[in-house]
Amino acid sequence: MMPRLSMNTTFLEACKGRRTSHVPVWFMRQAGRYLPEYQRVRSPYSFLELCKRPDLCVEVSLQPVDILHVDAAILFSDILIPMEAMGLELEFSEGKGPVFPNPVRDYRAAAALRIPDPEEDMPFVLETIRLLREALAVPLIGFSGAPFTLATYIIEGGSSRNFLHTKKMMYQEPALFQEILRKISDCTVRYLAAQVRAGAQVLQLFDTWAGALAPPDYTAFALPWVRAVLAGLRQQTDVPLIYFANNGATLLPETSRLDADVLGIDWRTPLEMAINAVNQAENPKAVQGNLDPLALFLPEKQLAERVTALLDAGQQAKGYIFNLGHGIIPETDPAQVKRVVDIVHSYQGTQP
Amino acid sequence: MMPRLSMNTTFLEACKGRRTSHVPVWFMRQAGRYLPEYQRVRSPYSFLELCKRPDLCVEVSLQPVDILHVDAAILFSDILIPMEAMGLELEFSEGKGPVFPNPVRDYRAAAALRIPDPEEDMPFVLETIRLLREALAVPLIGFSGAPFTLATYIIEGGSSRNFLHTKKMMYQEPALFQEILRKISDCTVRYLAAQVRAGAQVLQLFDTWAGALAPPDYTAFALPWVRAVLAGLRQQTDVPLIYFANNGATLLPETSRLDADVLGIDWRTPLEMAINAVNQAENPKAVQGNLDPLALFLPEKQLAERVTALLDAGQQAKGYIFNLGHGIIPETDPAQVKRVVDIVHSYQGTQP
Repeated sequence: MMPRLSMNTTFLEACKGRRTSHVPVWFMRQAGRYLPEYQRVRSPYSFLELCKRPDLCVEVSLQPVDILHVDAAILFSDILIPMEAMGLELEFSEGKGPVFPNPVRDYRAAAALRIPDPEEDMPFVLETIRLLREALAVPLIGFSGAPFTLATYIIEGGSSRNFLHTKKMMYQEPALFQEILRKISDCTVRYLAAQVRAGAQVLQLFDTWAGALAPPDYTAFALPWVRAVLAGLRQQTDVPLIYFANNGATLLPETSRLDADVLGIDWRTPLEMAINAVNQAENPKAVQGNLDPLALFLPEKQLAERVTALLDAGQQAKGYIFNLGHGIIPETDPAQVKRVVDIVHSYQGTQP
Repeated sequence: MMPRLSMNTTFLEACKGRRTSHVPVWFMRQAGRYLPEYQRVRSPYSFLELCKRPDLCVEVSLQPVDILHVDAAILFSDILIPMEAMGLELEFSEGKGPVFPNPVRDYRAAAALRIPDPEEDMPFVLETIRLLREALAVPLIGFSGAPFTLATYIIEGGSSRNFLHTKKMMYQEPALFQEILRKISDCTVRYLAAQVRAGAQVLQLFDTWAGALAPPDYTAFALPWVRAVLAGLRQQTDVPLIYFANNGATLLPETSRLDADVLGIDWRTPLEMAINAVNQAENPKAVQGNLDPLALFLPEKQLAERVTALLDAGQQAKGYIFNLGHGIIPETDPAQVKRVVDIVHSYQGTQP
C-alpha cells in the first residue's frame, strides 16, 4: 500500500477545473477484456459472479493503474447491477449481452420495482470500494448508468437496435415511463451516495444510449432525470460529478448547462465544439475525452498526432481530462493504450 | 397507366430548390415490411430472389405510391446488389442480416473485385426502372450505397458494431483501403449512370455508416469518394443528386459543402442546424428529412405537432422535402405513415 502522502490527486484537481502539472488520463473500460491479466482473473467465472466478488473486482480495478499508470481507478462493476437489485432477473449470455427475461412494460412490473438499500442489496460493490481505497494511490471513480440508459435495458429486455419498446412507452404511456424513470433515479441517487460513503471520490454517470434520442425527446424524457440525480447527489455529497452522454453532439445545448463538474465527450463530437459549448454555459465545467477507441489501432506516429491534437484542444477547457470517446474494445493492444498514457503524461502544452 | 400530363413533379422541383405548391414527401424504406401488401409479395421468396425479379420489384415499389400517395417512388433493391456484382458471394440470413462469407481484407481480394457492367450484371435493376417509369405518375428515385458504407460491409463481412476491420485497414493499410474505395466508387458511378439511362429521375446516395467515423476520418477516408461519385455523375447526367449521411450531425461542415442538390438529414440532427449549415455554404441546397422513424408511434396529436414543427423549420431551406431521418421500421402502422403524408400535403406554411 502506498502511503497517502504520495497520493496522485491530479485527476481530482482537473475535475474541479484547477490547473494541473500534467493532463490526467484514464480510459473507459480500462479494466477489461483487452488486458490478458483481466482475462486470467475473469475466465473461471461468469461475468455476474465476477461482479459480486470484491476480491476479484479489486484485482481487476487495480490492473490498469499498475500496468498503464493511469491517473484514476474506476470501480469494476456493471451498470445493470442496481437493476438486478431492483428485483429484476438479469442474465449475461456470451455474445448476446445482458438479458432481462421479464422486461418492465406495464404498471404492474413498474410497481414491483423496489428501491434497493445499497448496503443490504449490493454490499459487494461497496466492499470493493472500501478495499480499493485502501490499496490505491490515485482517486477512485464510482459510477452508475444514467436513468434513461438503464430504463432502455429493463424496458427492451436487453440491448436494442431501434429502442422500439422504450420509445413506444415514452410516446404512448408517458406517465408509466416517467414513473419507471423516477424509481430508477431514486435508486441511482441512493446507490451513488452509498458509493461515496464507502469511499468513491468522483462519480460518473454513463448515458450510453442518450444518443438514441432526438434532442426534443432527450429534453423531455432523459434530461429531467439526469438533473434529478445530479441534484440529489449535490445534496448528499461534494465529490466531483462527471456526466457522459454517448453520441451526444446534438444534445450539447442541454448537456453543457447541466450541474456537473465534468462533461464526458464521445468521439463523434469534435472536442473543440464541446469545449465551446461548455465554455459558453453559465457554469463552465471541465471536459473529458474523446479519442475514438478504434484510433488505438493507428500506427504510433499517427496515434501520437491524434492524441496531441486533443491535448492541444483541451487546453481551451476550464479543466481537461484525457480519455477515450467510448470504451476500449477487447481487441485493443495494451501497448497502444500505454503509449497514449505516456504521450499524455509527457505533454507540455502549446505555450512556451 | 397515368398519362404524362398529370405527372406530379413537385418532388423534382423541390430537389432543384424551386418553390412548390405543396411540400413533397416520401419515406426511406417506404417499400418494406411494415406494409402487409409487401409481406404478401415477399413471403414466397428469399430477399435476394425478390431483388432479382423486376415484376415483383415493380409491384412493391408502386405499393407506397398507391397506398400512401407519396410524391416519389424509390426503386426497390438493396445497396449490396452491386457488391455481389463485383464478384462477392452475398447471403441474407433471417435475423442476422447480410453476410459476405469471404470479406475483402487483402490486396488479393481487392484485386479480384471486378467493375460490373450494370446492363450485363444487374439487368434486373435496370429492367425494374424501365417498367416503373411506364407505370409511375411521380418521379422515380434510383439509389446506391455511398462508397464508405459499402466498403464496411465487404470488409467486415456484414453488419458491424465497432467497424474494427474497416478502421484497422484505414489506419494500418490506407493504400489498400483507398484502392477498395476507388473500385467501389468506380462501380457506383457506372451503376447510377446506368440507372439514369434506364429512367431514374433522381439519385440518392445512402451513407448509412458515415456516422461511424469521427470527423477527421470521414474527411480523409469517406468524403473524397462521395465527391468522386458526385463528380462522376455530374459529368454523365443532369438529374438531381441527394446525399444522406446517417448520424451525420458533426459531419455537416463537410457534407453541407458537397456538390449535391439535396442533403438528407438524419433524425438526431436538429433540422434548423442542418438548414443553417446548408444555407451558409457557397452552394445552398435543398434539405430532406428528418422525423425519427420511431416518432411514427406517437399519438395522432403529438405526431401532427412534430411533423408541423419540421414543416415550419423546412420553410427556411432553399428547397424542402419531407422524409424520415432513417428508414421506416417493420413494426410501424401504415395508417400512421399515411397520416404524415396527409399532414404534409395539407400544410399551408406559417406565412399568411
